[in-house]
Amino acid sequence: MTEPLDGAASPRFAQVATFARLPLQRDFKNARSVFLGLPWDDATSYRSGAREGPSAIRHASRLVRPYNMFADVYPFRVLDTVDAGDVDPVPGYTEDTFARIESALKPMFAADIVPFIAGGDHSVTLPVLRARKAAGKEAASLLHFDAHFDTWEAYWGSKRYTHGTWVKRAYEEGLIARSQVFQVGIRSSLYSHEDVRNNAAIVDRTYTSEDVDSQGYKVIMDRILEAIKDRPLYVSVDIDVLDPAYAPGTGTPESGGLTSREMIHFLRELHRANVVGFDLVEVAPQYDHMGQITALAASNLIYEGMCALARHRSAGARR
Amino acid sequence: MTEPLDGAASPRFAQVATFARLPLQRDFKNARSVFLGLPWDDATSYRSGAREGPSAIRHASRLVRPYNMFADVYPFRVLDTVDAGDVDPVPGYTEDTFARIESALKPMFAADIVPFIAGGDHSVTLPVLRARKAAGKEAASLLHFDAHFDTWEAYWGSKRYTHGTWVKRAYEEGLIARSQVFQVGIRSSLYSHEDVRNNAAIVDRTYTSEDVDSQGYKVIMDRILEAIKDRPLYVSVDIDVLDPAYAPGTGTPESGGLTSREMIHFLRELHRANVVGFDLVEVAPQYDHMGQITALAASNLIYEGMCALARHRSAGARR
Amino acid sequence: MTEPLDGAASPRFAQVATFARLPLQRDFKNARSVFLGLPWDDATSYRSGAREGPSAIRHASRLVRPYNMFADVYPFRVLDTVDAGDVDPVPGYTEDTFARIESALKPMFAADIVPFIAGGDHSVTLPVLRARKAAGKEAASLLHFDAHFDTWEAYWGSKRYTHGTWVKRAYEEGLIARSQVFQVGIRSSLYSHEDVRNNAAIVDRTYTSEDVDSQGYKVIMDRILEAIKDRPLYVSVDIDVLDPAYAPGTGTPESGGLTSREMIHFLRELHRANVVGFDLVEVAPQYDHMGQITALAASNLIYEGMCALARHRSAGARR
Amino acid sequence: MTEPLDGAASPRFAQVATFARLPLQRDFKNARSVFLGLPWDDATSYRSGAREGPSAIRHASRLVRPYNMFADVYPFRVLDTVDAGDVDPVPGYTEDTFARIESALKPMFAADIVPFIAGGDHSVTLPVLRARKAAGKEAASLLHFDAHFDTWEAYWGSKRYTHGTWVKRAYEEGLIARSQVFQVGIRSSLYSHEDVRNNAAIVDRTYTSEDVDSQGYKVIMDRILEAIKDRPLYVSVDIDVLDPAYAPGTGTPESGGLTSREMIHFLRELHRANVVGFDLVEVAPQYDHMGQITALAASNLIYEGMCALARHRSAGARR
Amino acid sequence: MTEPLDGAASPRFAQVATFARLPLQRDFKNARSVFLGLPWDDATSYRSGAREGPSAIRHASRLVRPYNMFADVYPFRVLDTVDAGDVDPVPGYTEDTFARIESALKPMFAADIVPFIAGGDHSVTLPVLRARKAAGKEAASLLHFDAHFDTWEAYWGSKRYTHGTWVKRAYEEGLIARSQVFQVGIRSSLYSHEDVRNNAAIVDRTYTSEDVDSQGYKVIMDRILEAIKDRPLYVSVDIDVLDPAYAPGTGTPESGGLTSREMIHFLRELHRANVVGFDLVEVAPQYDHMGQITALAASNLIYEGMCALARHRSAGARR
Amino acid sequence: MTEPLDGAASPRFAQVATFARLPLQRDFKNARSVFLGLPWDDATSYRSGAREGPSAIRHASRLVRPYNMFADVYPFRVLDTVDAGDVDPVPGYTEDTFARIESALKPMFAADIVPFIAGGDHSVTLPVLRARKAAGKEAASLLHFDAHFDTWEAYWGSKRYTHGTWVKRAYEEGLIARSQVFQVGIRSSLYSHEDVRNNAAIVDRTYTSEDVDSQGYKVIMDRILEAIKDRPLYVSVDIDVLDPAYAPGTGTPESGGLTSREMIHFLRELHRANVVGFDLVEVAPQYDHMGQITALAASNLIYEGMCALARHRSAGARR
Repeated sequence: MTEPLDGAASPRFAQVATFARLPLQRDFKNARSVFLGLPWDDATSYRSGAREGPSAIRHASRLVRPYNMFADVYPFRVLDTVDAGDVDPVPGYTEDTFARIESALKPMFAADIVPFIAGGDHSVTLPVLRARKAAGKEAASLLHFDAHFDTWEAYWGSKRYTHGTWVKRAYEEGLIARSQVFQVGIRSSLYSHEDVRNNAAIVDRTYTSEDVDSQGYKVIMDRILEAIKDRPLYVSVDIDVLDPAYAPGTGTPESGGLTSREMIHFLRELHRANVVGFDLVEVAPQYDHMGQITALAASNLIYEGMCALARHRSAGARR
Repeated sequence: MTEPLDGAASPRFAQVATFARLPLQRDFKNARSVFLGLPWDDATSYRSGAREGPSAIRHASRLVRPYNMFADVYPFRVLDTVDAGDVDPVPGYTEDTFARIESALKPMFAADIVPFIAGGDHSVTLPVLRARKAAGKEAASLLHFDAHFDTWEAYWGSKRYTHGTWVKRAYEEGLIARSQVFQVGIRSSLYSHEDVRNNAAIVDRTYTSEDVDSQGYKVIMDRILEAIKDRPLYVSVDIDVLDPAYAPGTGTPESGGLTSREMIHFLRELHRANVVGFDLVEVAPQYDHMGQITALAASNLIYEGMCALARHRSAGARR
Repeated sequence: MTEPLDGAASPRFAQVATFARLPLQRDFKNARSVFLGLPWDDATSYRSGAREGPSAIRHASRLVRPYNMFADVYPFRVLDTVDAGDVDPVPGYTEDTFARIESALKPMFAADIVPFIAGGDHSVTLPVLRARKAAGKEAASLLHFDAHFDTWEAYWGSKRYTHGTWVKRAYEEGLIARSQVFQVGIRSSLYSHEDVRNNAAIVDRTYTSEDVDSQGYKVIMDRILEAIKDRPLYVSVDIDVLDPAYAPGTGTPESGGLTSREMIHFLRELHRANVVGFDLVEVAPQYDHMGQITALAASNLIYEGMCALARHRSAGARR
Repeated sequence: MTEPLDGAASPRFAQVATFARLPLQRDFKNARSVFLGLPWDDATSYRSGAREGPSAIRHASRLVRPYNMFADVYPFRVLDTVDAGDVDPVPGYTEDTFARIESALKPMFAADIVPFIAGGDHSVTLPVLRARKAAGKEAASLLHFDAHFDTWEAYWGSKRYTHGTWVKRAYEEGLIARSQVFQVGIRSSLYSHEDVRNNAAIVDRTYTSEDVDSQGYKVIMDRILEAIKDRPLYVSVDIDVLDPAYAPGTGTPESGGLTSREMIHFLRELHRANVVGFDLVEVAPQYDHMGQITALAASNLIYEGMCALARHRSAGARR
Repeated sequence: MTEPLDGAASPRFAQVATFARLPLQRDFKNARSVFLGLPWDDATSYRSGAREGPSAIRHASRLVRPYNMFADVYPFRVLDTVDAGDVDPVPGYTEDTFARIESALKPMFAADIVPFIAGGDHSVTLPVLRARKAAGKEAASLLHFDAHFDTWEAYWGSKRYTHGTWVKRAYEEGLIARSQVFQVGIRSSLYSHEDVRNNAAIVDRTYTSEDVDSQGYKVIMDRILEAIKDRPLYVSVDIDVLDPAYAPGTGTPESGGLTSREMIHFLRELHRANVVGFDLVEVAPQYDHMGQITALAASNLIYEGMCALARHRSAGARR
Repeated sequence: MTEPLDGAASPRFAQVATFARLPLQRDFKNARSVFLGLPWDDATSYRSGAREGPSAIRHASRLVRPYNMFADVYPFRVLDTVDAGDVDPVPGYTEDTFARIESALKPMFAADIVPFIAGGDHSVTLPVLRARKAAGKEAASLLHFDAHFDTWEAYWGSKRYTHGTWVKRAYEEGLIARSQVFQVGIRSSLYSHEDVRNNAAIVDRTYTSEDVDSQGYKVIMDRILEAIKDRPLYVSVDIDVLDPAYAPGTGTPESGGLTSREMIHFLRELHRANVVGFDLVEVAPQYDHMGQITALAASNLIYEGMCALARHRSAGARR
């Protein structure tokens, strides 16, 4: 059972920052869940900077405390969480980087350790899902929070591996379960009407930011979770699902997004699901300011993901 | 038909930034709408900096893409939009600057080209409206989104041309249609109770931020558009109608404002109106940070204005 | 009757900044309310910087104008408000600082002058409440807006005076009325489940940010004010009750907070209460950016507090 | 004899900031020197923002202490200095603003009070010099530290009053003594070779930044002060004489400038001169960052100017 | 003959920003020199962000004026300079990007047009030099200003194309003349003593920042230019040759660097050389602040490079 | 023998940041030198924030590499350096914090481990020196780089432990050797002429920033080191010895300071001394910006201190 450094004894601004002040264990074998950084931003189409995402999220997560009263759970105890450090990327070489990520994640999935991942740009989700497949696990359902479809075919002519194409690749490679792809928060302007059609061919239900506004998180999550049932679920959160007011530090911000309160509500519903992997990507702290609210939101959303899973696992036996 | 640079071929961070990566054509004669910058901030009563508004908005607008799925429209194709550059102001001399703006806009209005204007401080709306009158067009209805009345008589003793007096001047000069002035988002503290009375003498309906909260955008826009009917409509958006969380980079920010999602909803309703001119003013990027969320919001709101008009024009024949 | 510098004559960016451009009177004897700064941040558990809070709030408050149309009141006239400067703290020595604060406030309370205080970290509320008791006044009800309980026993082993323990100390010292403690906006993660129990032993009703979301400000304030009735009420607002998007410049920001519009609504309800003291704490402007939206929000919230009291006092006789 | 607030008793971050924590006396009649703010930036040709210069300089000057060991002098005691507040400008109207500045300064010069002025953009020096003439004083020598000539004829076609034309206007209006104009630090790129000729017709000696590099401050100041002798001297410091590394927060920064140490050396030599007025202009804090090094440098340079004059006056009788 | 927009007529903050406000001509055939952006940052080993370098440099270069009094030359007239836009990179794919850069530059070199390049990270120099060879030109001498050797063999195991290996690659590929490689400003800490040996095998003379301090720019440049004589010279300036105080906005800043004044002095000596290409790389504006002093320094250094070449070409016939 | 993470294999932006990417060993027993953070800022008289100094220095130190060609030494190998984490302070309680620091350092000094300390405000040097005495070591000479004397008697009336009094306390407590105190870089304005006298009673030689300018680092260090000879030497570097251009992120910045190149030169001379302890204090990263040049300079200065000692120890046997 892992315990974070106690913030009431050791001030939160002291000591080397790990996620939530948890132990750093590059050898994660005894954990049941890990925090893992994937510092990579070469596949971004606009602003770079997400390579500093894991570092910024660790720094901001020093404020996270071990008990969540809304979930009534101690997630780190339940999930035996450690900070497993980062996977070293290969700057300038997308596919080499993907290979390293896949290698690093495969033994985690094989051991049924649930990774909570901090990106990095959104392209990193593809090798994570490949690792799950390589570990012999069944294809998971995908719950995808984002301002963007990420179902484009290619960028820059013919490049198929970017932060805007990973959902299509994952679908083509059989990494996600058929009829089990759900999107929430979509709102960006598009290249053409074809984008809508192409997305619909892959994604089962797309809830736009307008849908969130008119229907509310509860109705949407009820429908999604009813479709997913007890299938293994992979959750991928692009921080740009939040409005730029809440998450300025990101690569392709889009106006009209969700509030942090809405997003927390969405994630709290996940206690009803069987989460097998979770990532939060696209935090680029250079585009934030000294207050680092984006990394702060990110660290809280990862924490809520952990709490939801912990509550799922400890249902009936909490505290 | 104009097309922006394709962001899936040429990365959005590359090339000289024009609005939405549209062609720069100082000679705008073949366009049906233009983006035009009015970089002027000498008439501001508090923070200066709006002279960098057009530059910042162009930079942020690199993220805007040509198709809007919510309006189901390609605005640049429908409106044949170009970036017409800026009008050169005369720093230190308000009235000389107004004369230059009026001269630049008059031929646009005469040719029924719809200007989408990026300020500059709010005083620029006055010479724009003068240009419309000088072009022989009938006085338009005015839909004014703002935290402030802008119906004051004068500042600094006797100065009648400032960013807080343009509505009164436009009204006095017959530049806006009688009984056709509507305000949304008003909330600033005031100099005195007289301000309320004086504003009411000019403005037909004032919806405060509290009204937006209690009534919602749909009810308010239904009432306003019902009153406007098919009259020509000029829309003026002060970015400070948004809360400072959404638009910190502005000259006179006021707490308690609208969210970007609310403001997008308001503007999307404009597809029912006959917009003949549109401005978005008071972006002062020095008061934002590296993430430039204010300019980002501004570029999206201008884009939504374009989409609404395009949808209005292409109703029944979209795509 | 005090009047601020007229922003329509003397531009708001000119002259030495006092709160709302009110007269600076270190000798406050003729006032009926004062603005007072308590620049202190040594009792913070995470980010320091709140010692610059009063300075930043004064600077941002230059935008505040003398008439509030929502309350229909001129608060500075009704309350005869002056800026009384700051209490000099003793950096590095918590208890010496508390003694200075208590000394400074005691004569104000004795003279029934209502202090509107800008912190400083939240520990400063304790000596303010001690001053009220020392002045012979009855214990007030406490309305506490915050993301955090602030009812912890001690930090750093045995330190009982920090920004996270003041509510417990005030309760123990009999500085607040029994069964008259109300919290709004609570949402932080906690050290343990014991925190919830310990808080409940002191606080009568705790409304979390989820409660605000589901019940709305009106229902909550109706219940709270019904319980308080016409008792003397002390209001303490930690700026971190707002979401980090609205108030990044603070020491222990927590995702999922209130909007500035919600918070203004809460405070406007206070016109029904008998406010005898008000503080707004934890503004750390170093964690904001050039636009200083946190100090701007803070200055508006203090102003709304003043307006509510002014409206309360002038009910039936306004203007 | 005025004394600043004691920083060893009242912490420097506490209390309302005046220049060097000196008394604020809008009525300056008993002083022998004053600090005065001229918050104006409408005559700037590039970045606006200098309207916040006086406010930022006051804030940064809280670090200035009353004794200078290099000059061995207590300047505020010797010069009986007060902070006289700001002159209210008229935004948008250059010539009205100039009239107000001239009015405010004339009685100071008439009473032989030495003004230490914080701009504002550089155009403000013109009405200050006009005020001196209007007060019946002989034309002073001019020592002008700047990256730019400021001897242009006009901008924007025909506008003769801008921050780049004031030296020419002052020369034409007989506000400065013939053959008594000296420039130090010049280095900007120019519009044409004519600029050099036109400048040479007005300025007696121009020391470029290359000259500073090769000759050093001592040689240059010896030559200048030898030419000035005991004539009354007006000193005008554009903060952009410093390199942007030392003064990023300014309107028209130019690479290759002076260091703060060099500039302090130049000013310390002024103890040999009869300074009758001093300004430091073009601080635009929006272009600095939280550390506000530009305003810090500015407040120190003003202080060094005060110390030099105090040493001049108290020569032989110091301390 | 090209002319920039006149800053005394059209304010420098107005209009779409091109380098020095020169005409934008993607078709550069009639120019004799071009400004060209290479927005690429995927080969960086530390901070990304240089993809925004060209955009930031264009913005900052609005302050550059057409006449340089130190060189007594009008560079744009002499060199017939245009802004040729950017080369579109291929994010995530180093070698594809290099191919695009080589293609874009080859016709420029073939036509003896001198490119003045704004990076992008330093890896871009390699394809630029390849383009020169592909255009059939003789290998040029290399003058390399940098804090780092950039002669490493590989990064991330086996990756031979990064911003730290380009000098070695250029040497191996015969893109630079033997015994004609000169480094100035070197100072970074190293991986091992082997780095020194390996660098010495490629570079003929390495002047460290200590050498600059002790010998001065004149001695160093005399020696270098004496060795180069009238050979074609390629100049590559990594902005991190400047101290972080002068250029914070870069990827791998190193303490103890040159001042902007020193660097300008170095470049002014180039009027004695036959410059056939010039780049300034590694500006990452996200790591600067609103004042953008790094991009400002960069735009001035590029301008000084242009002036040196113009002076070289017009020697004896200037103005 | 400790080795840092290899930056050519694992990118420098990846993995949890320790000083120079060295191993984190809270149990430092096998090391011969340690990096240690003392995150404390409650004893600051102006800007707080230095509690984040250790965290920022670790982050910036990721760029430091293991070999220094100027010293021709591998410091981490020679000194067997580890990162020993931070000492937990007691916010709000100066003397309790001092006790914790003394306890943590005593065993290090007892084991002749050389601490390289990152503050924290300058008050932390006092308990460090107390620890050395408590460990039974002879009083060391003190080489103090600073803009300020730090020999004041007390602040806030009677508080004897602040960041401005530690030298006097250390002297009184016999923690530093008589006639062995040397100051470099002094330049701040003072409270009174008494400050000079009082300082001279404690400090043997004070070299001001003017002395550095006129005499140069070599002469000054020759004199100091000749006086120190082979006595044990404690070096204390207040980052504000640098000019604010080089180190904006600090609590009490003073214009006219040293450059980073000068400071590196000073420290490189220390290879001639027997350094037994080294601290670098007063880095307050909130007052820097995203580029974090202050923490970068600090990490380089600490590294140079390590290199000097390593060179001292390995003289004759290097590599």
